[in-house]
Amino acid sequence: MPESESPAATHVFDEAIDLVFAGDNRFTGHTHAAYANMVGPFGGITAATILRAVEQHPDVLGIPLSLTINFAGPVAEGPFDIVARPVRTNRSTQHWSIELSQDGAVATTATAVFGTRRATWSSTEHPAPPVPPVEDVASQPFPDFVAWGRNYEMRFVEGAIPEPNAGEHPDSTTTLWVRDNPPRPLDFPALAALGDVFFPRIFLRRGHVLPAGTVTLTIYFHADAEALADQSDSAVLATARSHQFRNGYFDQSAHLWGSDGTALATSHQLVYFKA
Amino acid sequence: MPESESPAATHVFDEAIDLVFAGDNRFTGHTHAAYANMVGPFGGITAATILRAVEQHPDVLGIPLSLTINFAGPVAEGPFDIVARPVRTNRSTQHWSIELSQDGAVATTATAVFGTRRATWSSTEHPAPPVPPVEDVASQPFPDFVAWGRNYEMRFVEGAIPEPNAGEHPDSTTTLWVRDNPPRPLDFPALAALGDVFFPRIFLRRGHVLPAGTVTLTIYFHADAEALADQSDSAVLATARSHQFRNGYFDQSAHLWGSDGTALATSHQLVYFKA
Repeated sequence: MPESESPAATHVFDEAIDLVFAGDNRFTGHTHAAYANMVGPFGGITAATILRAVEQHPDVLGIPLSLTINFAGPVAEGPFDIVARPVRTNRSTQHWSIELSQDGAVATTATAVFGTRRATWSSTEHPAPPVPPVEDVASQPFPDFVAWGRNYEMRFVEGAIPEPNAGEHPDSTTTLWVRDNPPRPLDFPALAALGDVFFPRIFLRRGHVLPAGTVTLTIYFHADAEALADQSDSAVLATARSHQFRNGYFDQSAHLWGSDGTALATSHQLVYFKA
Repeated sequence: MPESESPAATHVFDEAIDLVFAGDNRFTGHTHAAYANMVGPFGGITAATILRAVEQHPDVLGIPLSLTINFAGPVAEGPFDIVARPVRTNRSTQHWSIELSQDGAVATTATAVFGTRRATWSSTEHPAPPVPPVEDVASQPFPDFVAWGRNYEMRFVEGAIPEPNAGEHPDSTTTLWVRDNPPRPLDFPALAALGDVFFPRIFLRRGHVLPAGTVTLTIYFHADAEALADQSDSAVLATARSHQFRNGYFDQSAHLWGSDGTALATSHQLVYFKA
């Protein structure tokens, strides 16, 4: 990450995930108004912040391979504490347990696997779908009442946010070109946040906004540092869908590819809803 | 679970996941030779055992919604300790952090979300694929050197374990009818184990056995107690595939449906490989 010469040059994403290491596995941070969601912060910024804690830990080994975040309770506007504990370090992998708390109450639990990668036989079995190039897809604003949406440039190829009175939709697939707004070179925390960048699939299926929130989110990172450098601040192609909605919960699986078709990450989540 | 009247009537799965609650969030258990894998126990039996710990905890709320297991280090043949801690209990959800250790070294970390469900609008967006009925598909034995495979009746519809010198396969999809052997009524631990019942996708793609092991596994439970009771000991239709193999790791997503087409669970994992 380049050092900025003045505070004005700091990207809002970096402000939001900024942490102070307090020693003994402890970090302190503060919620950022620009990433507020309807209730508490955007889940993706919480995921990014927790990943940042591990990245900044003095004992970290390698790069992120996976991250699971459990949204145990609401995060209130204000300061928070993160404890990131390296539970086990092997030769090429490292396992982390992380908790984010406020006033002693745990709001978020997480586990992460970091590690080193070496070149092996590789194969992209699930390639990016055929879509129009980014410049041919119009940018669409997020609803005004969702602050965090303003930090992303979103160009929906299919499954855009439903218009009022849209009615039911037969499937839950959303595909979009997306990048930080203003543009920012992709790194692992930003990629983690993009793994949660989709509005709830139930909005699309039902055709309107209703109470919904991610309960647990898992991201598998396929990108290494070289893939992130190649991607830089270009738009990411992202697609998400659900498989099953039942009795208060639905799942979502998402795939993210770089502008050149490189698979960057897959993410999965389970979401609470009231309908 | 029905109490058995004699030890001979206890299913091997129940023997394998048997735990003793020692108070203060602690359980003790022992690996079971019948669920041994090439290195350490079958990951599915570890997932089932950890889920069982939470189910047996006196403070448990509701039924499993999600489970993430991180295979941090090998589990050696012998006794192990599990600490299952209810980190946060809300009105309808409960978040758990769990660690399995041997001689004080953490071998497995996990998080789980439990909760109560209520009837809502529901939809199976990803139905079971069209396959022959279970009785029309031949049962195939697992390789002899994998003990745990003998505890499952597996009827491969596509993507069976490659024969020697099979050569490369263009895709990683395996679909099979599967159930416990001998048959056993499905419960959440058994469903968790089935979420990891697939041999490594890289074997299929490359056409031979090579070093591979799950690093992290996440299961989303769509079934409730009623769906499990309806399923009983019938075969489950299970399908798994990978999206990306790159530099030492590949992902896998799996879907499990009941014999009547009810979506029971989806599972995702990241797997280490050497090729």
